[in-house]
Amino acid sequence: MSPFAPIPGVVAAAEMVASGAVSAEALASAALARLSDLGPRYNAVVALDAAHALEQARAVDLARARGAPLGPLAGVPLAHKDLFYRAGRPCAGGSKIRKDFVPDITATALERLDEAGAVDLGRLHLAEFALSPTGFNAHDGHGRNPWRLDHCSGGSSSGSGAAVAARLVSGALGSDTGGSIRHPAAMCGITGLKPTHGLVPLFGAMPLSPSLDTLGPLAVSVRDCARLLGVIAGPDPRDASTLAAPRRSYEAALGGDLRGVTIAVPQDYYRTAATPDILVLLDASLAALRAAGARIVETCVPDMALLNAMMQLVMGVEAAALHRGWMEERPQDYGAQVRARILPGFAYPAVRYAEALMLRAKLAQDWLATAMGDADMVHLPTLAVPVPSIAETTEGDASDIAAAIGRVTHCTRAINYLGLPSLSVPCGFAGNGLPAAFQLVGRPFAEAMLLKAGDAYQRETDFHLRLPPDCAEA
Amino acid sequence: MSPFAPIPGVVAAAEMVASGAVSAEALASAALARLSDLGPRYNAVVALDAAHALEQARAVDLARARGAPLGPLAGVPLAHKDLFYRAGRPCAGGSKIRKDFVPDITATALERLDEAGAVDLGRLHLAEFALSPTGFNAHDGHGRNPWRLDHCSGGSSSGSGAAVAARLVSGALGSDTGGSIRHPAAMCGITGLKPTHGLVPLFGAMPLSPSLDTLGPLAVSVRDCARLLGVIAGPDPRDASTLAAPRRSYEAALGGDLRGVTIAVPQDYYRTAATPDILVLLDASLAALRAAGARIVETCVPDMALLNAMMQLVMGVEAAALHRGWMEERPQDYGAQVRARILPGFAYPAVRYAEALMLRAKLAQDWLATAMGDADMVHLPTLAVPVPSIAETTEGDASDIAAAIGRVTHCTRAINYLGLPSLSVPCGFAGNGLPAAFQLVGRPFAEAMLLKAGDAYQRETDFHLRLPPDCAEA
Repeated sequence: MSPFAPIPGVVAAAEMVASGAVSAEALASAALARLSDLGPRYNAVVALDAAHALEQARAVDLARARGAPLGPLAGVPLAHKDLFYRAGRPCAGGSKIRKDFVPDITATALERLDEAGAVDLGRLHLAEFALSPTGFNAHDGHGRNPWRLDHCSGGSSSGSGAAVAARLVSGALGSDTGGSIRHPAAMCGITGLKPTHGLVPLFGAMPLSPSLDTLGPLAVSVRDCARLLGVIAGPDPRDASTLAAPRRSYEAALGGDLRGVTIAVPQDYYRTAATPDILVLLDASLAALRAAGARIVETCVPDMALLNAMMQLVMGVEAAALHRGWMEERPQDYGAQVRARILPGFAYPAVRYAEALMLRAKLAQDWLATAMGDADMVHLPTLAVPVPSIAETTEGDASDIAAAIGRVTHCTRAINYLGLPSLSVPCGFAGNGLPAAFQLVGRPFAEAMLLKAGDAYQRETDFHLRLPPDCAEA
Repeated sequence: MSPFAPIPGVVAAAEMVASGAVSAEALASAALARLSDLGPRYNAVVALDAAHALEQARAVDLARARGAPLGPLAGVPLAHKDLFYRAGRPCAGGSKIRKDFVPDITATALERLDEAGAVDLGRLHLAEFALSPTGFNAHDGHGRNPWRLDHCSGGSSSGSGAAVAARLVSGALGSDTGGSIRHPAAMCGITGLKPTHGLVPLFGAMPLSPSLDTLGPLAVSVRDCARLLGVIAGPDPRDASTLAAPRRSYEAALGGDLRGVTIAVPQDYYRTAATPDILVLLDASLAALRAAGARIVETCVPDMALLNAMMQLVMGVEAAALHRGWMEERPQDYGAQVRARILPGFAYPAVRYAEALMLRAKLAQDWLATAMGDADMVHLPTLAVPVPSIAETTEGDASDIAAAIGRVTHCTRAINYLGLPSLSVPCGFAGNGLPAAFQLVGRPFAEAMLLKAGDAYQRETDFHLRLPPDCAEA
């Protein structure tokens, strides 16, 4: 395989390595070359770790040569936003403050990927401290969208989104506290899964707001996401929130049509915020899901202003608690936009935060009862507006910038407070030519159901297979 | 059996009913008679529920007559502090504000006791809103110690402690947020188990501070506690904190000696607070445990002031959040001592509360590493001083009262912040003639180990079998 060809997706890469069509080392080398060559164009890469990656790849090739059993990700070239700790390797979290931080632990998610045979190529761009839905980073520069470089790649998992979309890697992990997996997936035209809070262990990932933080895959297809999720999900004694997490194969749920599956579509809040071009794409995606056998029903949602306020409160307080020492000692080392997002968290009384935590289960039940009812999942836009330009989200009046950022998180942030799983699936191109996406939101731990529906949709459509311009051959 | 004889313990009562030595109905009638006759002496009873109890008892007798299998608590007469909800029955929580509250749900713990065949005789006294370690209640009067009526029965599960100690019931449930099972158990000379946070479902019990609240048994013996715990422990989908809880028989762990068991005894904080008479009793209990085969090692504890402050903060904030509406609208309907305990919780910033929650796992690890090290459990006084008189904790200077109350919680409250299990075992009588007790604290979900050690101790001693004066025959 040419070192400059697009890197195949997760399942395809695993099959190629398993069959001997390509060696893990050759695949890793090709991905490293593409990351070096095209990564800077999207500002997607923080640092590559070629020596480590090639060592992992050679171990896979050696195991295969010996006839040893191969893991489900053997030889699959991955890279992740730079907030997953690997013992002995720096992890800056997109910040200036942690630029030289070298963790002495390895994230559970990385350990599980290693165990499955995946190759970790290095560290990808993210928003400073994972605190921006657009990919803004005052220190490292803005992430750039492979479909149009002056547009946002989405954040905070900006590098993960761009690198997968441009086929520099087979897949990537992201983190999602208010939409940080779903934004880059939607904006870059790939598939992203934000799991149920408590399904994928948070141990060893830089925290932003532990009550809301989730870790999950960004990849070309739903099937690729299912493969990655099956590896990283499940209980970890080092993260008590995961102790009820099921362990299962998510790929086994794929295939078959959607007869018997009911999808609820709230008619308010989400759709009323959507621009006409996005609405057309959402309706077309519903038609495709209906064609696959699903029944579509109309619902509405409860008070979203309350849920959004609760999410802001929880994230604000927990981020402030985690950043208190640095905010006191090194405020000048934060980007202004990030500092402004952390500061309000210091002002809340504890009683309000305790109420937000105590109300959470009840409000999630209410949301599910209203938005989903007896259906199996809810269909929402991931982004109700076309992908914004970088200028729109960084230049001009502060209130205009805040409004532009607010439009980006309109459909995503409450889902984190509710703790629910959400799968973002690309569904075409908005009026400005950039990707659009819907999200399927389910009950806690209903990832398999969402993946089944997303996979059925992707067997009817090819939006997830489209390549951004100028990246087929570097 | 005479209606006025002491009610046998849990295991004894279950055996008598199973063998036909006594009918469940006769046993329930005897317990109802003793509760009516002696309950007022200790101010232990809020309200009996004779019709319900006799119906439950008759159902057991009928099942036995039919040869149907009997549950592990079939016919065992119990009553519980008045904070466990039973649908359709009032539950005042020791308060004026909730005097007429009638829940429409039943606590998981009560459902499990019902399922096991237990007979629920009615509602027992507790501190107002479970907020006093001494049994203080401005509305219902102070709980009284069966060993000396002008002394504290311990709180907040005051009625549970007194009713079991005076053998008015076979056993009782209590709740423990800062010591509320262990105080009445220790002060009344019976056995009490505060389980690991997340072992016994909290669903349907009036909350005080959900991060700290635990539910557990008070009974004559360790074996009785083991029987009750086996019934009420285990996962409940309505309480997410219990999803990792094991389901097991705790009685199976009893018996055998303590060879191979190591007990750590911190030499600071707890023992340095103990009065000379209590120290003698603690040392005698260690000698008995050593005689049973245990190895005793000396340790120390980390900064307890920090842990106590964290516990106060978490309890204060969560209690304030739960009471906010009533504190705003009906402050005059709280007792002054309880109102004063709730108010400080409103003053904390959210960031401090978030830090207290985030630090919890780490501080628990540190405490275990320091206080326990490689040992299997930690031996501490439950109460480092003799049981105080009611006057000491209610009359005179406010700071003296606060100091007296502080001495009661000195050894118990940090354990709730740490989330660890603790078994309180009576070990003799202090200089003032009232009961004293030690507690065995273990690792999360190590209840079986604590019960094994406590049971071995009770096979060497008979303090738990001693009856308070004037209650052998009413």
